Amino acid sequence: MELVYTIIGSGGIGGYYGGKLAHAGHEVHFLLHSDYEQVSQNGLKVDSVGGDFHLRKVNAHSHTQSMPKADVILIGLKTTNNHLIKELVTPILKENTIIVLIQNGLGIEEQLNEDLPGSQIAGGLAFICSEKIGPGHIKHMDYGKLIIGSYNITKTEILQQVCTDMQNAGVQVELSSDLNTSRWQKLIWNVPFNGLTVVFNSSTKALMTHAATKQLIYDMMLEVIHAGRACGAHLEDQLADAMIDLTERMKPYAPSMKVDYDHNRPLEIDAIYSQTIAVAAKNGCAMPKVEMLEKQLRFLNVVKAKR
Amino acid sequence: MELVYTIIGSGGIGGYYGGKLAHAGHEVHFLLHSDYEQVSQNGLKVDSVGGDFHLRKVNAHSHTQSMPKADVILIGLKTTNNHLIKELVTPILKENTIIVLIQNGLGIEEQLNEDLPGSQIAGGLAFICSEKIGPGHIKHMDYGKLIIGSYNITKTEILQQVCTDMQNAGVQVELSSDLNTSRWQKLIWNVPFNGLTVVFNSSTKALMTHAATKQLIYDMMLEVIHAGRACGAHLEDQLADAMIDLTERMKPYAPSMKVDYDHNRPLEIDAIYSQTIAVAAKNGCAMPKVEMLEKQLRFLNVVKAKR
Repeated sequence: MELVYTIIGSGGIGGYYGGKLAHAGHEVHFLLHSDYEQVSQNGLKVDSVGGDFHLRKVNAHSHTQSMPKADVILIGLKTTNNHLIKELVTPILKENTIIVLIQNGLGIEEQLNEDLPGSQIAGGLAFICSEKIGPGHIKHMDYGKLIIGSYNITKTEILQQVCTDMQNAGVQVELSSDLNTSRWQKLIWNVPFNGLTVVFNSSTKALMTHAATKQLIYDMMLEVIHAGRACGAHLEDQLADAMIDLTERMKPYAPSMKVDYDHNRPLEIDAIYSQTIAVAAKNGCAMPKVEMLEKQLRFLNVVKAKR
Repeated sequence: MELVYTIIGSGGIGGYYGGKLAHAGHEVHFLLHSDYEQVSQNGLKVDSVGGDFHLRKVNAHSHTQSMPKADVILIGLKTTNNHLIKELVTPILKENTIIVLIQNGLGIEEQLNEDLPGSQIAGGLAFICSEKIGPGHIKHMDYGKLIIGSYNITKTEILQQVCTDMQNAGVQVELSSDLNTSRWQKLIWNVPFNGLTVVFNSSTKALMTHAATKQLIYDMMLEVIHAGRACGAHLEDQLADAMIDLTERMKPYAPSMKVDYDHNRPLEIDAIYSQTIAVAAKNGCAMPKVEMLEKQLRFLNVVKAKR
């Protein structure tokens, strides 16, 4: 069976993974706003460490009403736009359409399940360094692994098929049997680095070079691990050491929130911080340092101009 | 009995309180480094909200060896220079010389007592907004109250006399019978505001205007109050509300650490943060948010240039 894919949020995430699928010959429809004219006429360019490609003919749409029904909807939006998902996907839903939320944070699937009861939802975690550098122009700098996990999918064969399609399209993909653990696992890194690179207006490297911030990052990782465990995620304390080691071997890196901050976009504080703190609290676990970072980011989300 | 005063650290604090005493006719000797020539020749100028004055003839010294023995030594140094105190005061000590450490933070008297066993030590807390704006030129912008408390003074009459002298010189002064509580009380305000104005490069007002930072300030105040109580200080939770109210009525204000930061001076992280955290930990009390702020400040103390 050939799956029909729809990409909502055709930036660094959606543009890249959707582009890879289209490049491999799959039917992929892209929802575009400001880039619609450019992509309709000139297609989508992906400059990638894995090899550049240019999709000259792209199924570009300026609204979902013109799209065919989708088997799989990949959401590559920022979570700050998740209130739009219901309206955007409704015209293209059919029986068993799978919605894959390729986003950071916690509580995202729960929210969509509330907004669209009965929908088939999966979560995706992109370990990738990519961004849109111009209209219809994606730059993929590093990494690229995608972890997908079911939230409430009944027909898991379709999710399996998505993985196979991704793999055949050259994407390193993994099917997680425990989405909750996968989400928390990514938070271990995202919580300290996304926020602290914004607070200090610095790369990961500067923070790792100084003993005090390295210790703080480690402490926050442990806070996330302990909270995750209280919330049913399978996480060992040693993951903090492993992530510190990994980051030390990484090139200096601007996490997604730092990129958003530099582009004056709203920060994903709710999904990455507030939801995490709230779920942890519900499970009896305090996260004082993460809470402090959340409040610092709320301030910076508003007063950036002051700096 | 007329007390002989010596001022070590003739900046915003020492220059102001020493200047007031000299202006009232007391014998006051000032230790000066870079300002020595200027002050020897042109005296000390104090521009004060309480009335400007100019001391044309000042007992200026470039080292303590040339000074007479002192009855009272007022230390107005930054705590980052406290390792110098022992050498500086030794030439001017006599029996019953009182050393008053007019400084923020915790553990200062303990440290001096270790460095100079047997010395007579008091602590001072200056609620003042003043700074040195040029050689031999102090600007006193607001407030001015001084709280003095004995650490290990046997002849408390001298401390009482210091208070009387200050009062007669026009300084609002209070003798504390519980230096520990007084120090912790000042920390309630200093801990959140000194550090957060540095982290956000902002005034107190910006932080108070935003709900998230106001809440964070309140949370940190409670952390200090609870730690202080664990360390024997008499502090009620309502002090946090009172200090929030007070700050809301204050003019936008740059705390001493923010002033230090803006002038590229080392930050008083040890006295205000690390000592506080260490003493609290010794008494079984964790301060996670204060600890996080301490680590953020350690980073900024080094990488200021990056901002």
